[in-house]
Amino acid sequence: MSNRTDVRRVLDTVKAEGRTALTAPEGKVVCEAYGIAVPKEGVATSAADAAKIATAMGFPVVLKIVSPDILHKTEAGGVLVGVKSAEDAQKGYDTIIANAKKYNAKANVLGVQVQEMLTGGQEVIIGAVTDPVFGKLVAFGLGGVLVEVLKDITFRLAPATEADALSMLDGIAAAQILKGVRGAHPVNRDALAKMIQNVSQLIADYPEIAEMDLNPVFATRDDAIAADVRIVVNFSPAPARYRPKHEDIVRDMNRIMKPKAVAVIGASSEAGKIGNSVMKNLINGGYKGQIYPINPSADEIMGRKAYKSVMDVPADIDVAVFAIPAKFVAAAIAECGEKKIPGAVLIPSGFAEVGNHEGQKELVSVAQKYGVRLMGPNIYGFYYTWSNLCATFCTAYDVKGHAALSSQSGGIGMAIIGFSRSAKMGVSAIVGLGNKSDIDEDDLLTFFEQDDNTHIIVQHCEDLKDGRAFAEVAKRVSKKKPVVVLKAGRTSLGSKAASSHTGALAGNDKIYDDVLRQSGVIRARSLREMLEFARALPILPTPKGDNIVIITGAGGSGVLLSDAVVDNGLSLMAFPPDLDGAFKKFIPPFGASGNPVDITGGEPPKTYQNTVRFGLEDPRIHSLILGYWHTIVTPPMVFAKLLAEIVEEMRGKGIDKPVVVSLAGDVEVEEASEYLFDHKIPAYPYSTEIPVDVLGAKYKWARAAGLL
Amino acid sequence: MSNRTDVRRVLDTVKAEGRTALTAPEGKVVCEAYGIAVPKEGVATSAADAAKIATAMGFPVVLKIVSPDILHKTEAGGVLVGVKSAEDAQKGYDTIIANAKKYNAKANVLGVQVQEMLTGGQEVIIGAVTDPVFGKLVAFGLGGVLVEVLKDITFRLAPATEADALSMLDGIAAAQILKGVRGAHPVNRDALAKMIQNVSQLIADYPEIAEMDLNPVFATRDDAIAADVRIVVNFSPAPARYRPKHEDIVRDMNRIMKPKAVAVIGASSEAGKIGNSVMKNLINGGYKGQIYPINPSADEIMGRKAYKSVMDVPADIDVAVFAIPAKFVAAAIAECGEKKIPGAVLIPSGFAEVGNHEGQKELVSVAQKYGVRLMGPNIYGFYYTWSNLCATFCTAYDVKGHAALSSQSGGIGMAIIGFSRSAKMGVSAIVGLGNKSDIDEDDLLTFFEQDDNTHIIVQHCEDLKDGRAFAEVAKRVSKKKPVVVLKAGRTSLGSKAASSHTGALAGNDKIYDDVLRQSGVIRARSLREMLEFARALPILPTPKGDNIVIITGAGGSGVLLSDAVVDNGLSLMAFPPDLDGAFKKFIPPFGASGNPVDITGGEPPKTYQNTVRFGLEDPRIHSLILGYWHTIVTPPMVFAKLLAEIVEEMRGKGIDKPVVVSLAGDVEVEEASEYLFDHKIPAYPYSTEIPVDVLGAKYKWARAAGLL
Repeated sequence: MSNRTDVRRVLDTVKAEGRTALTAPEGKVVCEAYGIAVPKEGVATSAADAAKIATAMGFPVVLKIVSPDILHKTEAGGVLVGVKSAEDAQKGYDTIIANAKKYNAKANVLGVQVQEMLTGGQEVIIGAVTDPVFGKLVAFGLGGVLVEVLKDITFRLAPATEADALSMLDGIAAAQILKGVRGAHPVNRDALAKMIQNVSQLIADYPEIAEMDLNPVFATRDDAIAADVRIVVNFSPAPARYRPKHEDIVRDMNRIMKPKAVAVIGASSEAGKIGNSVMKNLINGGYKGQIYPINPSADEIMGRKAYKSVMDVPADIDVAVFAIPAKFVAAAIAECGEKKIPGAVLIPSGFAEVGNHEGQKELVSVAQKYGVRLMGPNIYGFYYTWSNLCATFCTAYDVKGHAALSSQSGGIGMAIIGFSRSAKMGVSAIVGLGNKSDIDEDDLLTFFEQDDNTHIIVQHCEDLKDGRAFAEVAKRVSKKKPVVVLKAGRTSLGSKAASSHTGALAGNDKIYDDVLRQSGVIRARSLREMLEFARALPILPTPKGDNIVIITGAGGSGVLLSDAVVDNGLSLMAFPPDLDGAFKKFIPPFGASGNPVDITGGEPPKTYQNTVRFGLEDPRIHSLILGYWHTIVTPPMVFAKLLAEIVEEMRGKGIDKPVVVSLAGDVEVEEASEYLFDHKIPAYPYSTEIPVDVLGAKYKWARAAGLL
Repeated sequence: MSNRTDVRRVLDTVKAEGRTALTAPEGKVVCEAYGIAVPKEGVATSAADAAKIATAMGFPVVLKIVSPDILHKTEAGGVLVGVKSAEDAQKGYDTIIANAKKYNAKANVLGVQVQEMLTGGQEVIIGAVTDPVFGKLVAFGLGGVLVEVLKDITFRLAPATEADALSMLDGIAAAQILKGVRGAHPVNRDALAKMIQNVSQLIADYPEIAEMDLNPVFATRDDAIAADVRIVVNFSPAPARYRPKHEDIVRDMNRIMKPKAVAVIGASSEAGKIGNSVMKNLINGGYKGQIYPINPSADEIMGRKAYKSVMDVPADIDVAVFAIPAKFVAAAIAECGEKKIPGAVLIPSGFAEVGNHEGQKELVSVAQKYGVRLMGPNIYGFYYTWSNLCATFCTAYDVKGHAALSSQSGGIGMAIIGFSRSAKMGVSAIVGLGNKSDIDEDDLLTFFEQDDNTHIIVQHCEDLKDGRAFAEVAKRVSKKKPVVVLKAGRTSLGSKAASSHTGALAGNDKIYDDVLRQSGVIRARSLREMLEFARALPILPTPKGDNIVIITGAGGSGVLLSDAVVDNGLSLMAFPPDLDGAFKKFIPPFGASGNPVDITGGEPPKTYQNTVRFGLEDPRIHSLILGYWHTIVTPPMVFAKLLAEIVEEMRGKGIDKPVVVSLAGDVEVEEASEYLFDHKIPAYPYSTEIPVDVLGAKYKWARAAGLL
């Protein structure tokens, strides 16, 4: 194996020659430097030479044109496979040279590569791309139609860990192929994973390597060898984005989100004005810190002394909420900078969202000069309930809880507030990010990570300015707290110019999906699901194992709940005989044995009580899904109360397992569901899927966080 | 082409010899009789013979063992491909015979088949199975790993129409392959479809043909040839289920569902008894027909004269509702029979659901003797609101409307009632089917098809007793009214013994999915979705075209709504310049042009008014999706009222396009959504997906019904 200086030398040559791709021999050098196995090969410069090299290597061989000007070798008639003798090698050389001349008379032909022909095993593709959002990514898929037509390919951030690489082998729909079907040998997973890791390390090490295809790679039970290597370079990659240091983000975000003093720039006494709504929300919301109204033409606003500028305030200010027209914003940020205010909450619109990109750039440049962090512009502001802080012109919200939500769009922000109020959902914060000129999702993650009032972080976003920064932070944070993301714009793949096969296969949303999963993020599939997760996940304990049991009064619910279990990638516990017997003791003789435990319809409260209690007490059972059926024998509120009582009693004994409930019945089940939610048991009327989706999300998180 | 008597002769021979599969030459005869192209071939009985046949045919050829005792030829070493010369054919013959002897010394070897070797084109598989629910099905998939690992295979009821067969070519995930990728020629779709049709006709014509594999079929741009044929027979197929005649079902179901007189067998004055609840619901529900309490030990119940038996009632009775213990049911059915009552609603439990299959069989046998149709047993009964009929022990429900719902499970029935009451959903009927000893989904479809009060039929089921009958009826009914099915038990594939490749690939749920789609049924993915479809579809007009436009006040909602559009297989209308210009006139200059029409956040009611009105008036636009954003400029109820007004005005002018609404905002959007629903506009708070799912379902139905 040659060392990495060889890679540098190859790249320097390519750069010096103004090329955008490596030749096959150059590719081989690079691969060998990174321990990526390639076939035996040599470059022939004459027909006789070709025969000689091939004979030394052993037949069959492949012949391939070597020319920096011919990227699509097959198209150019520059590839011959299955060459079986010295004579054929000689003839083949001449054919290829002739084809190449015909294809491109001006092509600089360096010779013909003679390569050991790999056969057998499974053809796969390993590649790499530079994504505008996430940067360097490594890709893996099976060769042929699967990757071509079904886009059955998976991505990870580069460099990829061994676990990442192994997860890619299971991350394609046709994963089973790798395990050997129709009597084929399974591939050597370690060899494949190692190659994925090596490719990911290579592209991570060299910013100028933009795209890469190893296609096909022959994966056998013994090894993995890349039969063809294509490497595309770009010597002027986009510069890395500026990121404040972690401790600076934490310090500034804490002052912004939990301020001791707030200035309202553009505060007003006039009802209907945004500056008035913000003042009212701050005061009426019960915020206990200092509030400084800033208004050049007022002495006093809502009983507080007003100042002409933040610079006139004779005390420290942690955050300034802006309620002034767009044209005055830049100057006011400068004043905040002079005053050493770490954060500006820019409610004003009139910037990038209306095409005023220059105006927005100006804000950012002023803010960066002074080190002021910007939230917005074009936002509703934010809430931080544990400080009774409503730094927004929207209606106040004060139900304290542990979900921190953010939205890129004001409309979605309003939906969050409406749903929260309707469901009495406890939140720690609701934040509008709007144009994201500065503060974005990863800043919020960094704050909420260390905010003890926040137990789950839920974010709606349409794009990520810096996907890599987000993924890095999310990977760390999601180990501690669930991170849920609703990524909008899933289905607009956009059009991408890509010169590699892997690049062409990289649908934008597939990358988001893979990288978010790699980062431990739970992806919500819809707005309502995002909201349901925000509501339920903080009150649902983390499961300690995979053994899920359904206890139901309605056989029909049991069937639908079982469907939902499978849909969520969960499975029902297979009962050992003693467990089956234990449940059977509590239920009528015709109740269904096994899991689901069907206690049957007409049962009294005692039967629910006994089975649920047993399910919670037996240490082999880790989670319960309950399917309640409304009957006059056990009315909804009777069920809800008995369930809440048992769960509380068990919590008192240190037994705190996830319990989710589906309630089938007349409208009284709505009150019962609310009661259960109030007692920290996620419960849903008229739905067999939401309770299980919620449980599934908690399992997904627990697995990604390494807790299961 | 030989004629069909050849098929009969072959099958008779197979039967006479007690075999369960056809030999290859027999398969060839059968295929040729049905116009299924097979390769040139002949059977050699000596090595010299093999060489001679092969030479006459032209090389390469394939050699295959012919033995009724060797089904898995490759396993037995009984296949040689790519035989290129007379000499090799001779050697190959000997090798195969030797291998066969080694594999099974007792095998009756009839010779070696010499077959034209097909190469090139796309390998596909066409097969057939006999499904326990749906009977004869034809299957299509690509060969190799796609069908093996990804189960990328699709099914249709046999016989399949030309349209069915063509839809199968597009019904697999890898459909694009057939159109030619990587420079390959597209296959001849007509030839493939014809072969699918022929296979489906063959298996439909011969009940004893149980399973069939044409694998592989070589599909080229010119033709489709089945390289290998496997036919499995079963000479004792399950007998066809008894089905009453259509006109009998219609007559009896009309008397049952819209009775002039109802008997309550087991009527009681004692509160808490089921027979009392049923009486109360009938009387208090406002039912105007005759009610006859039947109770051997009472003279009068709830003010009505009681009779000892239905036979004592001096007038016709249309339906008898049973509220007596299981053990008395059979005798009471006989009395209903004597009295010529066409229907018995069997609330009592204690039959198949508790393992009492004999008891249930007895009911059916008594009922069939007298021609009494049975609903249940083990049900809550049914509601038919337009007759004010609550023939159930559950709480009454009386909101008249046009959705007819049914459930197999009582729990799901209760969820239907609860959701309906909560959402004030208008229903025509709610029916419990329970054990489905007799009346099942297709009887209900047949009734609701001709019931003018019903505009949509929504059914929860766990199994279909007779899938073929259901599919046949659903195919007809769904042309007139949307049929929505929530099929529970999707994910329990069960284990099936199957001796063909196609059989082994036939996952139960995949078949349900394909056949329901073939029948024009909309499949709900969840309980809540089923309920939302039931609520929204009847009030949503049928779209007259594919041009969908989103008008939104929140850009963020626009993005999520667009995602939902794509998720539902819909697409946004591409605006011609004049349309774009027309919308732009109504919105601020920075509003987003194109579709979605982003009117931006702070707009007054007028902007919603103008854009919605224009969208409804322009005949090129067929459906509107609205994304409302709660602001103080246009509060929720202001928006709701203006929208309802415009839509009503347009309906007055004969313009009735589907309009669905997503409302993002504070809790007032809930009231606004209700108001809109009351004005026949489906509207949803805090959700961008439900409105589009509902619209998508209407489109799916309109397409399946041939209205689009």
